[in-house]
Amino acid sequence: MSGTAGQVIRCKAAVAWEAGKPLVMEEVDVAPPQAMEVRVKILFTSLCHTDVYFWEAKGQTPLFPRIFGHEAGGIVESVGEGVTDLEPGDHVLPVFTGECKECRHCKSEESNMCDLLRINTDRGVMLNDGKSRFSIRGQPIYHFVGTSTFSEYTVVHVGCLAKINPAAPLDKVCVLSCGISTGLGATLNVAKPKKGSSVAIFGLGAVGLAAAEGARISGASRIIGVDLNANRFDEAKKFGVTEFVNPKDHDKPVHEVIAEMTNGGVDRSVECTGSVSAMISAFECVHDGWGVAVLVGVPNKDDAFKTHPMNVLNERTLKGTFFGNYKPRSDIPSVVEKYMNKELELEKFITHEVPFAEINKAFEYMLSGAGLRCIIKMDA
Amino acid sequence: MSGTAGQVIRCKAAVAWEAGKPLVMEEVDVAPPQAMEVRVKILFTSLCHTDVYFWEAKGQTPLFPRIFGHEAGGIVESVGEGVTDLEPGDHVLPVFTGECKECRHCKSEESNMCDLLRINTDRGVMLNDGKSRFSIRGQPIYHFVGTSTFSEYTVVHVGCLAKINPAAPLDKVCVLSCGISTGLGATLNVAKPKKGSSVAIFGLGAVGLAAAEGARISGASRIIGVDLNANRFDEAKKFGVTEFVNPKDHDKPVHEVIAEMTNGGVDRSVECTGSVSAMISAFECVHDGWGVAVLVGVPNKDDAFKTHPMNVLNERTLKGTFFGNYKPRSDIPSVVEKYMNKELELEKFITHEVPFAEINKAFEYMLSGAGLRCIIKMDA
Ligand SMILES: NC(=O)c1ccc[n+]([C@@H]2O[C@H](COP(=O)([O-])OP(=O)(O)OC[C@H]3O[C@@H](n4cnc5c(N)ncnc54)[C@H](O)[C@@H]3O)[C@@H](O)[C@H]2O)c1
Ligand SMILES: NC(=O)c1ccc[n+]([C@@H]2O[C@H](COP(=O)([O-])OP(=O)(O)OC[C@H]3O[C@@H](n4cnc5c(N)ncnc54)[C@H](O)[C@@H]3O)[C@@H](O)[C@H]2O)c1
Ligand SMILES: [Zn+2]
Ligand SMILES: [Zn+2]
Ligand SMILES: [Zn+2]
Ligand SMILES: [Zn+2]
Repeated sequence: MSGTAGQVIRCKAAVAWEAGKPLVMEEVDVAPPQAMEVRVKILFTSLCHTDVYFWEAKGQTPLFPRIFGHEAGGIVESVGEGVTDLEPGDHVLPVFTGECKECRHCKSEESNMCDLLRINTDRGVMLNDGKSRFSIRGQPIYHFVGTSTFSEYTVVHVGCLAKINPAAPLDKVCVLSCGISTGLGATLNVAKPKKGSSVAIFGLGAVGLAAAEGARISGASRIIGVDLNANRFDEAKKFGVTEFVNPKDHDKPVHEVIAEMTNGGVDRSVECTGSVSAMISAFECVHDGWGVAVLVGVPNKDDAFKTHPMNVLNERTLKGTFFGNYKPRSDIPSVVEKYMNKELELEKFITHEVPFAEINKAFEYMLSGAGLRCIIKMDA
Repeated sequence: MSGTAGQVIRCKAAVAWEAGKPLVMEEVDVAPPQAMEVRVKILFTSLCHTDVYFWEAKGQTPLFPRIFGHEAGGIVESVGEGVTDLEPGDHVLPVFTGECKECRHCKSEESNMCDLLRINTDRGVMLNDGKSRFSIRGQPIYHFVGTSTFSEYTVVHVGCLAKINPAAPLDKVCVLSCGISTGLGATLNVAKPKKGSSVAIFGLGAVGLAAAEGARISGASRIIGVDLNANRFDEAKKFGVTEFVNPKDHDKPVHEVIAEMTNGGVDRSVECTGSVSAMISAFECVHDGWGVAVLVGVPNKDDAFKTHPMNVLNERTLKGTFFGNYKPRSDIPSVVEKYMNKELELEKFITHEVPFAEINKAFEYMLSGAGLRCIIKMDA
C-alpha cells in the first residue's frame, strides 16, 4: 500500500459549481475507498459529449456542485475492503458503466447492462454508503457516472475499472473509456459486417468514426459515411470511409439514396448521431433479407422510432447497443491489446491536448465542433 | 413421362369468379408445363388466411376469376424444359414463395426472399410467358401466388416446389406448405430460444401455435400465450403453452404484465397476429440486454411500428421473418423429416376434413374461427 492509503488526499479537481458555467480549479478532499471501491490517480482524461450534456443540464436533473469526467486512464493508489482484483500500481481505465460479475446481465453472454452498476446519470454518490467521497471544506461535491475523472484522484467502484496492460500509453488508450469503444464495439460486436460487405455510418463524430474504424478492421469494402456537416468528410477519409452522403444534397430520403448506391441497401448500418430521423433512415437503408441496423446514439426523451412493419417483416434486423456491448472488466483489456498490436489506430482520434489547468478549452473545442478528442494532461 | 405429358389436362377446379362469392366447381383445362415449370397432381390442400384475404379482396387489387390455394401436397405429373431436379412421380409441396438458387438472396445464408420467385400476390400469370395455364372454354383463369392448389392439376415454377420424402403422408405434411412452417421457423430459425428460456407468443392461431411448437421443441421452460380470444387458450395447452395472458383482463399494457410475470421480460417473443399494437407489445415485452422479438403477422397498409428508441438502445433486437426464414427447396424437406421422426406433431393442427366438392365449408370454418386447419381431399 502507498503512503497515502487510508488517508484523505487533498488534490486538484475541476469543479462544476453551476450548469453551463466554466469549471473552477479547486483543492478537494478525496476520502479513502470503502468496501469494493478503489482510489485512482488519474493521469489523463478526455472530454466526451455526455460530460457536456450533463454540465449544460438542459433537460436533465441538475446535480451541482459536481465533478465531471468519464474518459480517462490512471493508476490504482489504494483499494478498499474486499477488492481482490486490483492492487496499488495497476493501470486502469474507469468506465461509466460497470460489471459486477454476479448479476444476470453479467452472467449473460449477450448483455453488458449490469443490474448493479449500469450507468446512472442521476446518482451523484457512491453505492456503498450513499455518500460522496469528494468534499471541499466539508461540503460534499457530487460524483458523475461513478467516475469523476476531472480530479487528480477519484474513487471508483471496482466493477467500473478495467485493468489494462501497464505498457499501454495512458495518454492514448484513455479514449477507450467511452466513445471510441462504443463505436468500435457497435460494429465489431453487434453489426458484425462480413469481409467485403457494405456498411453505412450515420454521424461522423468520434463515435461514428470509431464505428467506421470497426468496419475497416472487419474488411468491409464500402464504408458510406452520412453526415449533415460536410466538414466531417475530410477527416473521415482517414478512418476508411470510402463514400459520403450529405442528406442535404438530395431531394429524396437518404435511405433511398443509399439503396440506389448499393443495389437495394447496405449490409449493415450503424447510427451514431442521436437524431431519431437518422435512426429511422439507418434502419430503412439496410438490405432486405439480411440487413442489420445498429443504434448507438442517445435519443431525446420524447422521440419515437417509427417505421412501417413491412420493413421489419422483410427480414431486416434492428439492434441497439450500449458501450458497444463490451463488458468493461472482461473485454476492455483486449481492446487495449488491439491498439498495442496496431490493429486499431487511436492517434487519429486525438486532435487536441491541453494541461489540466486549461480544461475549459476542451469544452470550447467540443462546443465549436473542432476536432474529435482533446486529451487533458493532469500533471501539466 | 406419364401418358398425359405434353397434353392439356381437363380436370376439376374450384374457381373464384367474384370477390367473396362461394367457389364454383368447374372443369378447367390445364396446359402442359413450359420451361422451368412442373405440372402437379394435387392430392390434398388446406385453407390458409391468405387465401381468404385475397378472395375477400378488401383492400387488395381484385383479380378474378382466379384459382386460390397454396397449402398442399401432390405428385409430379410432368415437367417442362430445363427441369432437372424433379421427375414424374416425385412427391412435392408447392410453396407460395420460391427459391431460384441463383440470386443474391438464394445465395445468402440468411435470406429466403428470392428476387425471382418471392411471393407476388398481384401476379396471376406464369413468369415464362406472362400467361395463365388455366382456362375454361378458352377463357384464362388467373393463378394465385404461383401455386393455385384448389385444382386437381396445377402448374408451378420448379423453384416453388419442395421435393419431399415419398413416405411422408401428404394429408398431414401438406400443412407445412405455409402457416405451420412460418410459425415453426420463426421460432427455430429466427428467435432461437435457448433451452430453459421464456418465450411469449402473441396470437394463438395456426401460425402462433406452430411458433409455440417451435418453442416446445427448443426446450423453452415457459411459453406464455397472448390472445384477445380466450377460446384459444384450451387448444393452446396441447401446443406446450404454459401460461396465458388476455390483454383484455388487465388495465395496464400487456408488455408490463409480462415484465412482471418474468422479472423484467421474456427472453424471446414471436408475434403472429398481424395487429400492429401486438407487434409493439411483443417488442417491448422482451428483456433488455438480450431479448429478441420476431414479427410474423402481416400488417395493414397504413400501420406504423412505433417505440421509444431507448427500448432498442437497451440491447433489444427486433427481427421480421417471412415463411419462417425457410428456403422452400433447401429446407422444407428437412421439416418434413422432423415430422417423420416424431419431433414435430402435425395432427393437432388438423381439426377438420372435407371432400373437394365441399371446399366452401372450409371457408366457413375459417371465417367462424372454428379450428385450425381443414384438409381438403381432392379425390373424395
Ligand atoms: N450508446 C452508448 O453507449 C453511447 C456512448 C457514447 C456516446 N453515445 C452517443 O453517440 C452519439 C454520437 O456521439 P459523438 O460523440 O460522436 O457525437 P458528435 O456530435 O461528435 O457527432 C454526431 C454527428 O452526427 C451528425 N448528425 C446529426 N444529426 C444527423 C442526421 N440526422 N443525419 C446525419 N448526421 C447527423 C452531426 O453532424 C455530427 O457530426 C451521441 O448521441 C452520443 O450520445 C452513445
Ligand atoms: N410472414 C409470413 O410468411 C406469414 C405466413 C402466413 C401467415 N402470416 C401471418 O401470420 C398471422 C397469423 O396467422 P394465423 O393464420 O395464425 O391467423 P389467426 O387469425 O388464426 O390467428 C391470429 C390470432 O391473433 C389474435 N390476435 C389478434 N390481435 C391480437 C392482439 N392485439 N393481441 C393478442 N392477440 C391478438 C386473434 O385473436 C387470433 O387468435 C397473420 O397476420 C398472417 O397473415 C405470415
Ligand atoms: Zn452485473
Ligand atoms: Zn462518454
Ligand atoms: Zn433466388
Ligand atoms: Zn398461407
